[in-house]
Amino acid sequence: MMRSIKTFSVLTLTGVAGLAVAGPAYAAITEETAFVFNSFSFLVHGVLVMWMAAGFAMLEAGLVRTKNTATICLKNIALYSLAGILYYLIGYDLMYTGVDGGWIGSFSLLYNPAGAELDLINAEEATEEMVAAVTGNSYASMSDWFFQMVFVATAASIVSGTLAERIKVWPFLIFVVVLTGVIYPIQGSWVWGGGFLAERGFSDFAGSTLVHSVGGWAALTGAIILGARKGKYGPGGRVNPLPGANLPLATLGTFILWFGWFGFNGGSQLALGSALDVSNIAIVYVNTNLAAAAGVVAAMLLTQILYKKIDLTMALNGAIAGLVSITANPDLQNHLLALIVGGIGGALVVVAVPLLDKLRIDDVVGAISAHLVAGIWGTLAVAIFSNDATLGAQILGIVVIGVYTVAFSGATWLVLKAIMGLRISNEEEENGLDRVELGLEAYPEFGRGSQTV
Amino acid sequence: MMRSIKTFSVLTLTGVAGLAVAGPAYAAITEETAFVFNSFSFLVHGVLVMWMAAGFAMLEAGLVRTKNTATICLKNIALYSLAGILYYLIGYDLMYTGVDGGWIGSFSLLYNPAGAELDLINAEEATEEMVAAVTGNSYASMSDWFFQMVFVATAASIVSGTLAERIKVWPFLIFVVVLTGVIYPIQGSWVWGGGFLAERGFSDFAGSTLVHSVGGWAALTGAIILGARKGKYGPGGRVNPLPGANLPLATLGTFILWFGWFGFNGGSQLALGSALDVSNIAIVYVNTNLAAAAGVVAAMLLTQILYKKIDLTMALNGAIAGLVSITANPDLQNHLLALIVGGIGGALVVVAVPLLDKLRIDDVVGAISAHLVAGIWGTLAVAIFSNDATLGAQILGIVVIGVYTVAFSGATWLVLKAIMGLRISNEEEENGLDRVELGLEAYPEFGRGSQTV
Amino acid sequence: MMRSIKTFSVLTLTGVAGLAVAGPAYAAITEETAFVFNSFSFLVHGVLVMWMAAGFAMLEAGLVRTKNTATICLKNIALYSLAGILYYLIGYDLMYTGVDGGWIGSFSLLYNPAGAELDLINAEEATEEMVAAVTGNSYASMSDWFFQMVFVATAASIVSGTLAERIKVWPFLIFVVVLTGVIYPIQGSWVWGGGFLAERGFSDFAGSTLVHSVGGWAALTGAIILGARKGKYGPGGRVNPLPGANLPLATLGTFILWFGWFGFNGGSQLALGSALDVSNIAIVYVNTNLAAAAGVVAAMLLTQILYKKIDLTMALNGAIAGLVSITANPDLQNHLLALIVGGIGGALVVVAVPLLDKLRIDDVVGAISAHLVAGIWGTLAVAIFSNDATLGAQILGIVVIGVYTVAFSGATWLVLKAIMGLRISNEEEENGLDRVELGLEAYPEFGRGSQTV
Repeated sequence: MMRSIKTFSVLTLTGVAGLAVAGPAYAAITEETAFVFNSFSFLVHGVLVMWMAAGFAMLEAGLVRTKNTATICLKNIALYSLAGILYYLIGYDLMYTGVDGGWIGSFSLLYNPAGAELDLINAEEATEEMVAAVTGNSYASMSDWFFQMVFVATAASIVSGTLAERIKVWPFLIFVVVLTGVIYPIQGSWVWGGGFLAERGFSDFAGSTLVHSVGGWAALTGAIILGARKGKYGPGGRVNPLPGANLPLATLGTFILWFGWFGFNGGSQLALGSALDVSNIAIVYVNTNLAAAAGVVAAMLLTQILYKKIDLTMALNGAIAGLVSITANPDLQNHLLALIVGGIGGALVVVAVPLLDKLRIDDVVGAISAHLVAGIWGTLAVAIFSNDATLGAQILGIVVIGVYTVAFSGATWLVLKAIMGLRISNEEEENGLDRVELGLEAYPEFGRGSQTV
Repeated sequence: MMRSIKTFSVLTLTGVAGLAVAGPAYAAITEETAFVFNSFSFLVHGVLVMWMAAGFAMLEAGLVRTKNTATICLKNIALYSLAGILYYLIGYDLMYTGVDGGWIGSFSLLYNPAGAELDLINAEEATEEMVAAVTGNSYASMSDWFFQMVFVATAASIVSGTLAERIKVWPFLIFVVVLTGVIYPIQGSWVWGGGFLAERGFSDFAGSTLVHSVGGWAALTGAIILGARKGKYGPGGRVNPLPGANLPLATLGTFILWFGWFGFNGGSQLALGSALDVSNIAIVYVNTNLAAAAGVVAAMLLTQILYKKIDLTMALNGAIAGLVSITANPDLQNHLLALIVGGIGGALVVVAVPLLDKLRIDDVVGAISAHLVAGIWGTLAVAIFSNDATLGAQILGIVVIGVYTVAFSGATWLVLKAIMGLRISNEEEENGLDRVELGLEAYPEFGRGSQTV
Repeated sequence: MMRSIKTFSVLTLTGVAGLAVAGPAYAAITEETAFVFNSFSFLVHGVLVMWMAAGFAMLEAGLVRTKNTATICLKNIALYSLAGILYYLIGYDLMYTGVDGGWIGSFSLLYNPAGAELDLINAEEATEEMVAAVTGNSYASMSDWFFQMVFVATAASIVSGTLAERIKVWPFLIFVVVLTGVIYPIQGSWVWGGGFLAERGFSDFAGSTLVHSVGGWAALTGAIILGARKGKYGPGGRVNPLPGANLPLATLGTFILWFGWFGFNGGSQLALGSALDVSNIAIVYVNTNLAAAAGVVAAMLLTQILYKKIDLTMALNGAIAGLVSITANPDLQNHLLALIVGGIGGALVVVAVPLLDKLRIDDVVGAISAHLVAGIWGTLAVAIFSNDATLGAQILGIVVIGVYTVAFSGATWLVLKAIMGLRISNEEEENGLDRVELGLEAYPEFGRGSQTV
């Protein structure tokens, strides 16, 4: 049996040639079907992106030491929770409502358009016009909110890994509140909300800059202000590896991220209800996969050449960097370009990780390299490989958003440091965050566990 | 570039104004498209709920001690398997066929309507009427079966965690057979099957009572009959923590449950094929997420206040309790109410867990608190926050289903105890179920592993 | 409230009886909606199959010893990456382009049809004919590519588990290149590409033979050429268990595979855009689940009877074998047959694993039993339980593909052995692949970890 389409659509049976097509009603039916497709795309792809929160949690839980593992788990589930609440409280409106070429949306509380929508279509007396008023919006409002919300959570997830093993739980979570409620939505309004950077032609399909670099900049700023973990950097430029405790978990986390990224990039087509939309989404899936694959292969080859060993954690970060790189432009029609973009992303990680160590910037999981460095590269690549934007516009966007995020994040970190302190004491760091902040152990029965340092 | 809908539907090109719309054929096309949407919603959302079986497995595997870890893994994959088989053998018909205001469906073996359906639409000679006879049913029969089946498995998953570390494998699995083949379907018929509680106005959108409380009651009954683990409760009311061996795994399990819950609640709209349906599903997704988030935050804040530490396992159970709470009414049009419902659910867990310990009811994973207590709360909340039901109807449903489940479960546990015994011996409990029942170790190379208690 | 369909389709409001239906335009609308459904099915189901790569990674990481765990993680993410790249470079065309009853497709580089498609429908001036030229293809080209690509990755995943703990990384990865770029696509062309086996009536719905047996044959050939792990087989036929280090991870992997298999089998309907297609997919989901469930139960019962213990790893492999068995024919209209097919598959694993050990064929994870043996059984079952194929055609396909895969794989393994060696040294095997090939440890803090053998 051939694996060709086995479609025996019964509808073709009903087609009777020669009859005239109905205009308005014909458009109406299309509109509602498209409305369902578009909304369902937001939901299905959004739930895949939600799952990336688990990916970050596992990646980070695998790359920290046992004594800080439960804390990083807590931070990840807490940041995902807070991101959703803040984006509902104020974030969405700041980003998407009434930006109109400006630099910020409107400040209003508790985004809640769904009731009004349903009032129009819920009633049994709903007229065609009432329904059209809703379906004319192309998608259900809350499906869009859900999809946008999981993106802000992703930005926050990036920060937790870099700052692991030394930052206190509560100041970190307060930073997450500021990041997801204010920092992220404001810069997001500049591009996706239709603000001034959108008008300048800056292009970022799914967020190489808007999500990944923003998370990366916030992480970098935090890492500098917070300082390195005790014992990470020795005298004379020595860098001590503090190896992650559970590499299969880190591998699982990377697979989850890869899986979820089909939602991240695919859903960013923002529509499914036409042949063109679904064809574009298919291209996006393919490029997303090829870029990640190229990132893995590039990182593997490069570590084999440089170190005569294949570094698993570099391969994992190579996948992530490939994914981040293609995120600004996953709809390239030439898939070979996706391989190139992702491969360069993967190679950049192998270079950037030791570079940051040389600068004594302690990034526990490599998130700055994988998200910020690759995010910048991917954003530039838009101008190089497609006609979607000029290099000037891309650089402008990268710089403006970078400066803004560093300044706003830096101020937030410094205020938190002054008020409540960011960092646990040296002795507490020795004992691990799990005992100090949570009063428990992640793996109480496993060998050394957190009983020794 | 704005992140607005980039839809250039080609179909709008074909719209020609002024032509009359076709009546019957127009309805037919809608019907088949809706049929595909509705069925696909059952499948996609059902597969997310299926994945919750993995979530329970990981949650429980992370919260037991190493010496019982492999056994809890086995129980989870076995109970999911049995639930599916039993629901096919007798369960679905008991719940959904011919209930008609009564208290039980029909007893018949091997649910198998698919062939008849396909006979109508498979043939090349299928007429429009034959197709309409199938699409008029709104969804493919087996897509509905699949979606209902994963719910019964969820009810069974709840039981395994509570009774872990001391119950024998085979009696537990026989209980699962009774629960999924008989206990669950019969009470399900009273509401979702259109039985007497549905007629009294009892409302439970996705199963706060019908799934989660039922699992919780069965677990509670089992925990009382089985007794606590050796060493859990000391003299003078002392409660000894027996900490879970792998908290990142428990965190993963919670994320899986959260992820799968979008299918659990979203799919319970039971249709996708209209603007109204997809708009409602979007609202359900948003409320589900906000309730879980509020549950996490409430549990974190409360444990910080009460114990000066943030308890990770409480935060995880807070997420689950938030999810369970919103499950009876996730279509609230005011999302703030979802935050409140979920937040109260998360707080209830923090209160209920030590309360059960005071009663010396040993619930290994906190499932009674997260599923039963929060399930009751969520069911009551329907009457408080919406017009879908009266408080009287909700209390009636909670009590009737509670009494029934306790009685039927209790009888089953007692019969099993009399015939084959429920509990392993003290010495076996010391050695762990993995060696006794499975003859292996879950983590043979890790530190103490199951070598010491 | 009844759990019946709550659909209040607004469209029924617009139906006006008695108007004539539009012929061509009516068909057109159907065509584009079906195009979106079909393509989206490939994407959603494909992403579930992609996730199976994580399942294999976790299953294998859980079943090897700690000292080889990081390496198996690396192999799994690398093989998934390479499979995608090779299938893009040459594989897809070899399998699907211009086979036409023959034994191989066309050799051409860099599969890239998407641009041409988009040129037709992207332009604002797209005519109805231009759009129809694309939608007439039933699905977006790259959605199909994506779905086919994840299948080739699955075949490669099967090999890594069997050969774990002793094969060098680079020769293994080169074999993956050959397998996914050449071996798999050529035999795939014989059936799914419309080649000579398709013309002989060989039937394999989703790949019991084409994917699972091919992976199994390649693994078997490799295992024989590579030899057993040191210490696996003692004198006098003694078989030493070398137990896996992390059984919850193996359980997670099995659940991931089960979850992803709904995509594997469900998506292999290759269309979603009609009532018939979605009804068939629903049947496929149900049978897939029942067969896996039966595999678990059969393996549990059989190990209980034979060994007086329930073997968790056998239960896990029972699930996989049940899934593999039903894969050739998951659209059986009588679900009882799915239970039988899967149950026999599960039982076969319990028999085959010790049999292979008797033959001193060292299969670390049981993949030959679960994928090859069950794959053969499932392929034969098509002829036994349905009218889709004759027993002669099925045996022909099994033999031809088996001989081909063994010969081609064997030659590849032998060439790699001659050129670069396949196996690490005895001392390296003692120390574990993680240190030798990767220079790190998977669990550096856990107990014995890889510090002792």
